[in-house]
This record gives sequence, C-alpha cells and structure tokens, in this order.
Amino acid sequence: MSDPSFIPEPCDLLVRADTVVTQDDARSIFNGAGIAISDGLVMEVGDYAALDARFEPAARLDLSGRIVFPGLVNGHTHLPMTLFRGFADDMPLMEWLEDHIWPVEFQLTDAMLEIGAKIGCAELIRTGCTAFLNGYFHEEITGKAASSAGMRAVVGEGFFGFPSPHFPSAEACWQVNRKLKEHFQNDLLVRTAITPHAAFTVGPDDLTASYALAEELGIPWQIHLAESPEETAVCLEKYGKRPVALLHGLGLLSGRTTLHHCVDVTDEEIAILAETGTKVVHNPASNLKLCSGISPVQKLLDAGVVVGLGTDGASSNNQLNMFRDMALAALLGKVRHEDASALSAQSALDMATRGSAECLGWQGLGRIEKGCPADMIALDLNSPNLMPVFNPVSHAVYASTGMEVCMTMVAGEVLYLYGDYRTMDVHELRNEALQAKKWVLSKAKN
Amino acid sequence: MSDPSFIPEPCDLLVRADTVVTQDDARSIFNGAGIAISDGLVMEVGDYAALDARFEPAARLDLSGRIVFPGLVNGHTHLPMTLFRGFADDMPLMEWLEDHIWPVEFQLTDAMLEIGAKIGCAELIRTGCTAFLNGYFHEEITGKAASSAGMRAVVGEGFFGFPSPHFPSAEACWQVNRKLKEHFQNDLLVRTAITPHAAFTVGPDDLTASYALAEELGIPWQIHLAESPEETAVCLEKYGKRPVALLHGLGLLSGRTTLHHCVDVTDEEIAILAETGTKVVHNPASNLKLCSGISPVQKLLDAGVVVGLGTDGASSNNQLNMFRDMALAALLGKVRHEDASALSAQSALDMATRGSAECLGWQGLGRIEKGCPADMIALDLNSPNLMPVFNPVSHAVYASTGMEVCMTMVAGEVLYLYGDYRTMDVHELRNEALQAKKWVLSKAKN
Repeated sequence: MSDPSFIPEPCDLLVRADTVVTQDDARSIFNGAGIAISDGLVMEVGDYAALDARFEPAARLDLSGRIVFPGLVNGHTHLPMTLFRGFADDMPLMEWLEDHIWPVEFQLTDAMLEIGAKIGCAELIRTGCTAFLNGYFHEEITGKAASSAGMRAVVGEGFFGFPSPHFPSAEACWQVNRKLKEHFQNDLLVRTAITPHAAFTVGPDDLTASYALAEELGIPWQIHLAESPEETAVCLEKYGKRPVALLHGLGLLSGRTTLHHCVDVTDEEIAILAETGTKVVHNPASNLKLCSGISPVQKLLDAGVVVGLGTDGASSNNQLNMFRDMALAALLGKVRHEDASALSAQSALDMATRGSAECLGWQGLGRIEKGCPADMIALDLNSPNLMPVFNPVSHAVYASTGMEVCMTMVAGEVLYLYGDYRTMDVHELRNEALQAKKWVLSKAKN
Repeated sequence: MSDPSFIPEPCDLLVRADTVVTQDDARSIFNGAGIAISDGLVMEVGDYAALDARFEPAARLDLSGRIVFPGLVNGHTHLPMTLFRGFADDMPLMEWLEDHIWPVEFQLTDAMLEIGAKIGCAELIRTGCTAFLNGYFHEEITGKAASSAGMRAVVGEGFFGFPSPHFPSAEACWQVNRKLKEHFQNDLLVRTAITPHAAFTVGPDDLTASYALAEELGIPWQIHLAESPEETAVCLEKYGKRPVALLHGLGLLSGRTTLHHCVDVTDEEIAILAETGTKVVHNPASNLKLCSGISPVQKLLDAGVVVGLGTDGASSNNQLNMFRDMALAALLGKVRHEDASALSAQSALDMATRGSAECLGWQGLGRIEKGCPADMIALDLNSPNLMPVFNPVSHAVYASTGMEVCMTMVAGEVLYLYGDYRTMDVHELRNEALQAKKWVLSKAKN
C-alpha cells in the first residue's frame, strides 16, 4: 500500500464474513475472510484485509457474524409438485399416486404449474439453495420461474412409455426436449436434461432412444432408479433383471447418467456404477416418507461413486430444504451402516454442494473458488441453535434448520437478504397458493 | 349483544388466529379462532367472533395469518450440554464420551452450566418448546435458567452408582434431590424428578432407593433405558437380564416411571411396559447420531404405552428443536415398521404435546383447552415452505423447520414474538457462548 505505483483492481462486489467454507478441493476454510466478485464470478477468496487492500469494489456486502458457504445444489426435485405439499400423507406409494396425486396431476394447467414452481423457488432461495435439477411436465414453466427468480436450474421433460395427458407417447417427447433446449439456449441460468421417469414405466427401446437424444444434444440423462424393493420386483418380473443390470445391459450407464434414489442396490451393482462413472442422487426424506428404505450411501462413496443430494418433490418430503436432507443423510448413514463415524458432516456437505453440482453436469458450482460462479449463502450466527460455534461444517449439517440462511446469492446477484426477497413477491405468492389450494381440492378425487 | 343486560366477562388476553389446533381429546381444530386467557390459564377456545362478543380483554394478540398449536414439550434433554454442540461428532459413543465429553464435563463450573442452560432455553423458546424435562448436574442452575426465561421445566439431578466429580456416590444425591425440590417449591414453573443415569451405571440397590425417594417425594422417576443393543449386552453380562426385565424384577416399572430411548425392546417387553403403565420418551435424532438404532414406536403406541418425544442433549442431536424430532419420528416410523401409514403426522404431534406432557407428569400441558395452562405457539404462514396449507398438522410435522414459530407463550406470558425475545438477551448470549467455547477448548483433552 505504501507502493506509490499500486493501483487497486476494480471488482463488482467485495463480501466480508466471519468465515468462508469454500468447499474447494482442499476444503479450505478462511476466517476473517473476503470474497471479491465480478461479472458473476469469484475473482478471489481469502483473507479479507488482503482483498480489501487489493480491490476497489463497486459495492460491499458485510456479512460479519455470518458464515458463508457455497450455494446448495438440489440434485433432484419436482418443483410444481409443491402444490401438493401436505395434500396427502402417511399412505403407501400406489394409494398416494393413484387416489390422490395422479387424478389432480393429470389436470394441471400452466397457471397452476407456474404457482407451484414459484413457491418452490421461494422456498429454495429461503433455505440456501442456488441451483436445482427438475423433472416434471411443461418444463419451460419451471425453467422460466427459476430464471425469473434468478436461480440456476436444469430442467427436463418427464415422460412415460405409456400415454399420459401430457404426451401421447415417449417419442412425442423428443421434439419437446429439442425445443426446450432451444428455448433456454440464451439463458445463462437454465440448462436442460433428458429425464425418463423410470425403468419400470419407460420401455427399453424408449430408454435407449432417449439416451441417444441426450448424447446428441450433449446434455445429462437422468432417471429414477432402484428406488425401492417393489421397483426391483417389477423389473425382475417384466425383464428378468434388476434395475441397474437392466440399464447396464442397455449400455445406459455412463458419466452422462445420474440415477435418482438407488435405495435397493447390491454391492455388485455399486461396483458397476463406480466402474461406469454413473452418478447417484440420494433423497433421504422422500425415501423415508414413501417407505422405500435407506440408501447405502457410504458404500457408494467408498466405491468412488459421485453422490449428490436432493429433496425430491414437496409432496413426498414435505420440504425443499437441503439443510434437512443434509442432516438426514448424515444421521441415517450411521444407522444404515451401523457405524457412528459413517456419513460425516463433511460428506453430507460435499454431497449437497460438489456432489449435486456434478450430477447436474454444471462445472464450477458447489464451491467458492477463483473463476467459479459466485453462488453462495450465509448462515446467521445470532440464531441460538448455532451457539457456540466449534465447527462450521458440523453446524451446517447438524445444527442448522436452513432458516438461519440470511443471504442467498446467484452469479453475484443477491436474491435474498434478511427477509427481503429481491426477485419474488412472497406476499402475493401466498394469495396464489390459496387459489392453488382451492383448485387442487376442486380437482381431487371426491 | 342486543340484550341490554349483557355484561362482557373480563379476561387478560384475547388471541385471534387463522386456525387453532387444540390437541384436546377430540383433536378439535378451529378456524377463525380465538382463545381467551386469564391468570395464565385458557378460559375458552373456539370461534373468534363468539369470544370477541363474550369477553372484554385487557389486551389482544392478533395472530391472523398464523396457526396456533399447544407449546411443544421436550420430554428428554440435558440443557447445559448445549455447550458441546458440534464439539465432537461422527464417532462411536464410548470414544465420544471418554475422549471428548467426559474430560470437559467433569470440570464444568456453575458459570458454564448456566451459559449452556441459557443458550438451550433460547433455542427451545425460538423453536416453540414451552416445557422440558432435564437431567444433568447442579440442576438448580437449569431450573433457575428456565424460570428466569419464563419456561416450564422438570429438573432432576443425574447420578451414577460410581463416584463422579459431582457426587461421591448415589446416596449423596438423595439429599441434593430433597433440597432441589424444596428450592423450587414456590416456583410455579419448575418441578423436580429423580433421574438415575442408567441401569448399567447405577446398581440395583441405588435404583431401588432412588425409586423409593421418588415415591416419598411424589415426583416422577426417569431413567435412560434400552438405548442400544450394546447396553442390553452389558446388562445381560452384569445381571443376566435385559434392561426392561431388570427394572421389572426390581418393581421399578409403574406410572411413576418414564424410560428414555427404548430402542432395543422386544414385543414381550413392550407388553410389560403397557401392563405396568410405564411411559417412554423417544429421541430419534440422538438415536441415529449415536448409531443406537430406531425405536419401534408404532408398536409401543399400538400396545397402549404413552410415548413422548425428546431431543436429548444438543451434543448428540445437535439441535433442541422439537419440530425436527417430530419429523424424524414420523419419517423413521415408516421405515422402521415397513409401513408408509405408520407414525402419522397426528401421532408425532401427539407425542410432542400430550405424550411428553404425561411423561413430565404435568397435567394440562400439551393441549389448548378450557382450564389448562395457556402455553402455546404460533406458526407463520408467510413462510414459503408452508404454502399452500391443506392440513395444519401435516405442516407442523413434515413442512415446518421450527423457525416458522413467530410466537411462544407460557402461562399467558409472551416469551417470543417476531424476533423479539422478551425474557432473554440473545445478543449478549452470543458473547457468553464465545467465552464458553474458549473455556471448553481450554479444558479439552489435548
């Protein structure tokens, strides 16, 4: 500073925080930390005083008394299903689908899909999620909702092998997916994926054709797989193969592929996933609520499989809160593997950040590092449930509810700060939610 | 109202809310509801317009846009252990105790115990808990912290059969417990219990003597029991009996007794608990984190056993948030019993309110009903994770994080309202937590 030739570098924003948990490769944690941001990217992260001396920021964000983490990445959700939150609980999967969800879902209008997606975005922003992977119907609606809220999303048009009110057939979906990708080609926040529903609802030929489309478009291929022993039984009966073997036989397991759930997988199947570079998203709350079981996540990690974390839809969770699913992943991992040291807090945070980012196929997300997108969140240490602080990673996973998030930022833009939603009208959203509730009840079976 | 002889009844406070979930015997839920309160008790609950016409309140509390529930009752915790939140995670029980918790715990000072208890009270109030059962050392400190914060507590001096830095022997504890009861005899908010640590750390003679003391003092007798298969193995080796059989043989199972955990219990043992009127507190988060297992709660309920819910200490949870444990109870119950309809949202709410209240032996808690203590909380429906609202009970259990609590009231006194802690200085608490952290680290093993 005493050097007269010193010229400070400009930056858009300089963030100051008590602590920054970077989630970089070395899992560096900085105290008394700063982050310089320009053009939506992190220019530098490190000691605040050094950054303050080096940069001349156009704006400053003082997060003293807060811990900054990378934005969480929700690896598996169905945002418009937020409409069905608490609509039908505590019942077996098929009763839930056939008697409650499907009769209404098949009548969904664009207006209702949009309300569901918007409520979902508001909850994700509030609870520190900055990017998500979504599979549902009329996905341009969810993509638009995310982009308009300033969030990142990977959206895919869900399809079955049999006719549904949304598509006469799986083939009809190919054109929709091409258009979906075109639709968002100039939107920096939204990408697309190919998302067949499941191996027991989409036949082998359509699975293979959809995978070829994903290859052609150069985008991820994502499917619900091995969600429950019941699914395995159906696959065995239909195809004489368990779900992972079925996909492997079709040549559909690769680094392009992410499997959602993987509750019912054997050690041999885990080895195949590792060998083929296939990724997995764990959805612990949903797997409990629908009584699917508990995924052997520590075994997947030990085998070298990339594992992300997702909330699934709000109708089977009933939150879209990645903090709750982080805690569940870590807590359940211990009982599942009969080892209190299994699924550590660090592993759970890794899944919710770097792991999910890999499943989305979106490089640079899930970490705060030079050159990476400036997607980050802050936890307020004034919340009594975060006192005292020994270990910020433990607090994020075990002690936080998600509501301690006081700031959510995507690409350097603040979306939420201390109760202020900058891209959404949450008060108006409550009125829309009330309309949506009335609509759902009017369409419900009896 | 047109009757000229009509004279409105005075009351201290009239509460108005969108919905009141009473948790009375009929599980009545009122919409457009009111609650009239005087002298710390509920005078009437029902239609707001009717109550507004009937009463002339000294004050009003408008909770429009909110749902009111009874205050949650934490059936099992160790408040001063909040000092150890996040201090040591992801390790087996004995390593955790011997290498981390005990070395510091045995040096605890009154000042540190008080800070831990105060942080705990702040978190409980913030997350909608109005009463708790606490077992630890120097329990007059936790009792005072609760009373000063305006909360209800049942406190018991924890003891072992072997010498500890806090007591030379179990017998030394009898006098402390008599004094503890005397100490709080004029405090309407604090009661006491007899709380031996466990059947494998307190010998049969001391267990029996402590039970006789509980009978003499007319207070509850509470013990950790059947927490894990490891405990069962120790009991079998030491006494040739499993934990429940051991206590049953000693005549210590009755309506006075509450067992904390009961993870490792057989169908025959469940029948004994039901027959003897013995109560159980379920601690799902702690049981997962310490890898103890998952209690067969639905079986206990089906057998007619009263089951409450607790968080255990913040060092093995790491929250004191009853909302999280309600969700866990409901979610885990399904997988534990291989039935998606097991442990419904209503059952989980029952455990956290009426069930825990029975375990505390405190009549009238856990419900909003004429003549009962005016202990209640409100959930803010403006939080996006509570949109839309189909079923308030489902939302309390599955969708709430606990941070949607915007009002906490005990005995008609508001303790917390929209960020304002009326009985505690939470800002100062953060400084105290920082001191406590430094103290813990200075006493830690290496």
